[in-house]
Amino acid sequence: MQCVYSADFSQFELAGLKDNMGVVISGEVIKDDRSRTGIEVRLLSFECLSVPVEETPVVINNKDVIATLDTLLDYRPITLRNAKERAIFQIQAGLCRGFRRFLDEHKFTEIHSPKIVFSGAEGGANIFKLDYFGKEAYLTQSPQFYKQIMVGIYERVYEIAPVFRAEKHDTSRHVNEYTSVDLEMGFIQSFYDIMKLETLMLSQTLDFLREHYGEELSLLRVDMPSFTEIPAVKFLEAKEMICKTYNRKITDFEDFEPEEEKLLSDLIKKQTGCDFVFVTHFKSSKRPFYAKDSSKKPELTDSFDLLFRGMEITTGGLRIHDYNEQVAKMQMRGMNIEAFSSYLMAHKYGLPPHGGLGLGLERFTAKLLGFQNVRHATLFPRDIVRLEP
Amino acid sequence: MQCVYSADFSQFELAGLKDNMGVVISGEVIKDDRSRTGIEVRLLSFECLSVPVEETPVVINNKDVIATLDTLLDYRPITLRNAKERAIFQIQAGLCRGFRRFLDEHKFTEIHSPKIVFSGAEGGANIFKLDYFGKEAYLTQSPQFYKQIMVGIYERVYEIAPVFRAEKHDTSRHVNEYTSVDLEMGFIQSFYDIMKLETLMLSQTLDFLREHYGEELSLLRVDMPSFTEIPAVKFLEAKEMICKTYNRKITDFEDFEPEEEKLLSDLIKKQTGCDFVFVTHFKSSKRPFYAKDSSKKPELTDSFDLLFRGMEITTGGLRIHDYNEQVAKMQMRGMNIEAFSSYLMAHKYGLPPHGGLGLGLERFTAKLLGFQNVRHATLFPRDIVRLEP
Repeated sequence: MQCVYSADFSQFELAGLKDNMGVVISGEVIKDDRSRTGIEVRLLSFECLSVPVEETPVVINNKDVIATLDTLLDYRPITLRNAKERAIFQIQAGLCRGFRRFLDEHKFTEIHSPKIVFSGAEGGANIFKLDYFGKEAYLTQSPQFYKQIMVGIYERVYEIAPVFRAEKHDTSRHVNEYTSVDLEMGFIQSFYDIMKLETLMLSQTLDFLREHYGEELSLLRVDMPSFTEIPAVKFLEAKEMICKTYNRKITDFEDFEPEEEKLLSDLIKKQTGCDFVFVTHFKSSKRPFYAKDSSKKPELTDSFDLLFRGMEITTGGLRIHDYNEQVAKMQMRGMNIEAFSSYLMAHKYGLPPHGGLGLGLERFTAKLLGFQNVRHATLFPRDIVRLEP
Repeated sequence: MQCVYSADFSQFELAGLKDNMGVVISGEVIKDDRSRTGIEVRLLSFECLSVPVEETPVVINNKDVIATLDTLLDYRPITLRNAKERAIFQIQAGLCRGFRRFLDEHKFTEIHSPKIVFSGAEGGANIFKLDYFGKEAYLTQSPQFYKQIMVGIYERVYEIAPVFRAEKHDTSRHVNEYTSVDLEMGFIQSFYDIMKLETLMLSQTLDFLREHYGEELSLLRVDMPSFTEIPAVKFLEAKEMICKTYNRKITDFEDFEPEEEKLLSDLIKKQTGCDFVFVTHFKSSKRPFYAKDSSKKPELTDSFDLLFRGMEITTGGLRIHDYNEQVAKMQMRGMNIEAFSSYLMAHKYGLPPHGGLGLGLERFTAKLLGFQNVRHATLFPRDIVRLEP
């Protein structure tokens, strides 16, 4: 609210007011077209509720906070008070509202799965260990096991919750704790059903933002993607496209390099105008043990990633629902079946065909708002050097 | 859906069908008033999508799962398939939907605060330690610090997320990980504003349940509390009431014993008909360092608990917003101010008067549904002996 002080009508000394005070003001509301809200308040008096003890070490009242990323994050409790910084996480809250609205309408049931777990969903070394009353426990890398189990209960489930990855690399794409938008659905025909659902969810959620967060979107000059369909390309074909178009030698035939995700996104944007692209049929060797191998080409999986403006924001796919098929794949990978017995209970006693996805909330927010570093869209980031604030 | 097999019209062998199969059925839909849904399906044929490898070790098709709590939890992925068990967590999902709807309407912004933290909010020994890349870190006991910081940004914030308590006691009221419904609001006049807000939130959320979860509520024969106001009693007066009414000797003047919470609830229910009761003005010595002491009686705090059917489900209160007042209280408690500098940044640079509360989602669900043990309303409980499934 724009407030005006003038010795003509204000009944106090201006020097009594400081930045970041908490105050109750009394004044006269006046129409004024020059104000953003169409009105302004002529200050008559004020009551002071709280007083800061120091001036902020970073200037936050300008349009942008002019500071390095480290400073921005070191002083997060203060820098977030800047209007633009504040708008970032209002939009993030809006995304969650949009996702939940869509999922509730589509008969998904929200679940709360445990974050302290007895074994990792994704496996590997990237897992935080915990002393749990003398036993070893872990922080969940994903609600994967639980959402699969819950497909046997509710058919469609979702969870928006923190996940933890003990990755040691310090890149602009990674933080060690992030918010994962996870869903899983049963009785699907193929993994294309999940891609269709995600397309619809993203498109309706962005419409929801346009409707309810117009002010924040315009303050941040957000370039809102518009689409009804998202193109899909097979992983190996994508590699070839990148190789041909950019005259680039492919060294890794198993996964994308970050640079390649950018090149592919650029290419698809040029060809189709779409900011998103699905990449499908990743190699089985690069996907987790619960991924369903493609029936015709078992060296590939019925899986997909979703790239958005050059960054992977979603991983999803069909899962193995048959107990014997799952056990066989785990044995082939030399896994200890016994250790996963409570997870495999779901398969053993019958689980419908199903699949799902996980979307990184902060990555999606970052790319939507045009940030290069996911930390800009992470409220209080955790990385290998940052544990505060 | 009630399906009928008969050799007269079904074109397959009944022996081909097993419990817990995933199937697609084809049949004729017939009106039948004896069916709960008003219709039944005369099975013609079926296609099998998935087959269990074993029969379930626990019978789940009866009205109730007849099993000990341990068995119920050991086989959670299976026992949750029982219609009544399933209804529990549908109602829990409904509660979250109701809370969020209320909070969104009341201009609260949802936040996602980190669960890996550099220091505990509540302090004490009940905190899980973590090896964070060679540094010591903790699992959050509550989003307290972050929601206070965020009051300086959005004025009203909320979060529904896991919290972790390394409590060693194994009681029917405690689990080591639970879902906390947390909110914090600025520019309030007193902690009664928070109690008013919670009363309205609970009442509207229960209305939302009645409207959208009628089937689940009637399946579980839920005794839904009806109220427009919740009585409030001061802690010391509550102690006296219990002492007089039940002719009981009080030994602990600082806190309630679990038995006393039950007695107080019973008493209030008899006197007022209300299933809820606020207890206010807990002793300062028993409340965390951020609790605001009562201005007239500084040995007490402007704080409250909410008891529901004999169990504490909420703790809340006014917080200290003034930097110097907060630092003084911490010094009096011998705390290391430096260690909390990123939290205190919010106070240092100005924070409005504020307060908030945390509500235990599983405890509330349990008491609403009439369970004695909170584990019945915890999807996959974690306690000192249970880390699976």
